Amino acid sequence: MSKFMDVHTEMKGITAEALREAHAADLAIQAEEGVVFEQAWADPESGHVFCLSEAPSADAVRRIHERTGHPANEIHPVPLMV
Amino acid sequence: MSKFMDVHTEMKGITAEALREAHAADLAIQAEEGVVFEQAWADPESGHVFCLSEAPSADAVRRIHERTGHPANEIHPVPLMV
Repeated sequence: MSKFMDVHTEMKGITAEALREAHAADLAIQAEEGVVFEQAWADPESGHVFCLSEAPSADAVRRIHERTGHPANEIHPVPLMV
Repeated sequence: MSKFMDVHTEMKGITAEALREAHAADLAIQAEEGVVFEQAWADPESGHVFCLSEAPSADAVRRIHERTGHPANEIHPVPLMV
């Protein structure tokens, strides 16, 4: 299991409600890929949303986000943390 | 005080040691701007480093990172979290 930070860049105007719903949708199916979404932070003005997860692979993260309708633009393994 | 996620994109090859040192340098002076760097995650392969902070403004975050020699490429207010 590794940590990943994925970035969505097209979510301008996202609301707290929409973020909660998107996150809930991911949580509902994440176990099918062994992914654990830990936290997400959103900047509605620029449309950037950052999602931190623990997962077996970047592809596993990608598949969950695609299935829930909000594919990530970038998925970064983040093996280093401080 | 607001939450910010800043992104460095030119840190290819960053090591655990270098990340710790960079973070320590920020922590050493952050109080001068009222910034609290909470966590940072690094992808040495792509050179992306993500830093989560609480701060009075994006400019305050920017100034600390500039003074410690690793300016951020992007600083995003992230008022929404889940």
